[in-house]
Amino acid sequence: MKIVECVPNFSEGKRKDVIDAIIGETKKFDIKILDHSPDADHNRTDVTFIGGLDEVKKAALAMSMKAVELIDMNKHKGEHPRMGAMDVVPFIPLMDTTMEECVELAKQFAAEFSEKAGVPCYLYEEAAMHPDRKNLAKIRKGEFEGLKEEMGKNPDRTPDFGPNHIHPTAGATAVGARFFLIAFNVNLATDDISIAKTIAKAVRHSSGGYRHVKAMGFEIKERGIVQVSMNLVNYRGTPLFRVFETIKREAERYGIGVIGSEIVGLIPMEALIDVADFYLRLEKFDGGQVLEKRLLEQIK
Amino acid sequence: MKIVECVPNFSEGKRKDVIDAIIGETKKFDIKILDHSPDADHNRTDVTFIGGLDEVKKAALAMSMKAVELIDMNKHKGEHPRMGAMDVVPFIPLMDTTMEECVELAKQFAAEFSEKAGVPCYLYEEAAMHPDRKNLAKIRKGEFEGLKEEMGKNPDRTPDFGPNHIHPTAGATAVGARFFLIAFNVNLATDDISIAKTIAKAVRHSSGGYRHVKAMGFEIKERGIVQVSMNLVNYRGTPLFRVFETIKREAERYGIGVIGSEIVGLIPMEALIDVADFYLRLEKFDGGQVLEKRLLEQIK
Repeated sequence: MKIVECVPNFSEGKRKDVIDAIIGETKKFDIKILDHSPDADHNRTDVTFIGGLDEVKKAALAMSMKAVELIDMNKHKGEHPRMGAMDVVPFIPLMDTTMEECVELAKQFAAEFSEKAGVPCYLYEEAAMHPDRKNLAKIRKGEFEGLKEEMGKNPDRTPDFGPNHIHPTAGATAVGARFFLIAFNVNLATDDISIAKTIAKAVRHSSGGYRHVKAMGFEIKERGIVQVSMNLVNYRGTPLFRVFETIKREAERYGIGVIGSEIVGLIPMEALIDVADFYLRLEKFDGGQVLEKRLLEQIK
Repeated sequence: MKIVECVPNFSEGKRKDVIDAIIGETKKFDIKILDHSPDADHNRTDVTFIGGLDEVKKAALAMSMKAVELIDMNKHKGEHPRMGAMDVVPFIPLMDTTMEECVELAKQFAAEFSEKAGVPCYLYEEAAMHPDRKNLAKIRKGEFEGLKEEMGKNPDRTPDFGPNHIHPTAGATAVGARFFLIAFNVNLATDDISIAKTIAKAVRHSSGGYRHVKAMGFEIKERGIVQVSMNLVNYRGTPLFRVFETIKREAERYGIGVIGSEIVGLIPMEALIDVADFYLRLEKFDGGQVLEKRLLEQIK
């Protein structure tokens, strides 16, 4: 069964009735909400939900229409950069789903939403139609207020879908496709922070390491140890076991052992099965052999 | 969410209409059939299905009632030992379910089925109420024909539930609880069968090895290698990674490497997550962090 995740971020983190009304729209669809976290300082709410491709798209669309109805960006203030009532809508491939399918889903969503609501949409990350729109921060530059001035004048700001002017109250929306992000930390049996920093440098993309790894070295003072703290931004491209083994090997060079590791938050089953597959040296293992995967096939 | 598996074996492997009618009973319930395999020589069919505790019990009961209606043991012939129309009904704990819950489920099933159908029931394996009934083969000794003679005369054959005489057409039923069985093979980089046999002996329970492992050494002639072929009868008690690491270590002693391993058929997600947990040295990992497990919670 194909499953995708969607994490819409909308521009309201204070008014409970508005937040509830927007999230309440998802009840009409066969999706499962995993998490939602209103942030009053940011005046923004992230909602994480999963389900089949079509249901997820419909649920995201219903939420977005409600956000357009209830949020006026002219009155919105918050610390987090934002440009629209429904600010960001990323689609993330999970079970049996490819990135290509999520890119397609993002395009369909942007086409339907901009048509229905008259809100201009920009495609970002893997769904970006222009290389300079991969980075969400670039798209959102100047925020609602700046974009209002620039749209229609600056051709760099022409949206990928919808009218070439900002929606008077709902602003503009960024729609994207990206991989599931795994927060993975490895704890080292030393209090020498320089070792954690050196190893972080060795594994992260920006300094020559693995393509889909972001890493930093930290001290965990209360335990008297250090940690390589990472975001794995594409666990299919750079799997957990490879990163873990590399860190173990690099630590060995300093005579340091790996105490343990931590997965913070959620992780797709597939990422852990890949670990088991590697260490057990499995031959011809197929995900369909996992009982629970068979069970999930009955969810439409 | 609690999930159990049930693998009823009934005494018909030839007449398609009868097989379909019995399996068709499960359609009334919220369960998922994973497999069914009618065997004409054995004149017997195994059905594997999973679901919530109550739905699984009800589905097994409906199948059993239909088997009583359609199968006459006086006319049944087949190579496999058997004593009843519904011959064996084992319950197997899967996600979030304990063995104790499956033992309780077996008792409830036996009480309800023997009451409704007048079929005597014997509890076996983990559900056994007497130590000498752990072994199914002992319960089934003499089969339908022998049990017909002995019941009511030999106190050793008094059933755990239901009348102390055989059902005239449906015989008797064994109801049990057991762990999920994982078929796990490890391939060694040698054609020396004596090494596979020695390692099988080292890991299997009967010759001093791990409590929940059955193992044999085999030749894989077409690949010119040997294999330690195992049944892991309780992956919670004796986990995959421990068995794999022990085999790897024992093979090393002969200078032999492990080429790979195979999981034959189905495996619960939990068994593979335990492997990932071990090798990644995870600290405080909780199964609830697995996305798909959250998704399964929406199945009632």
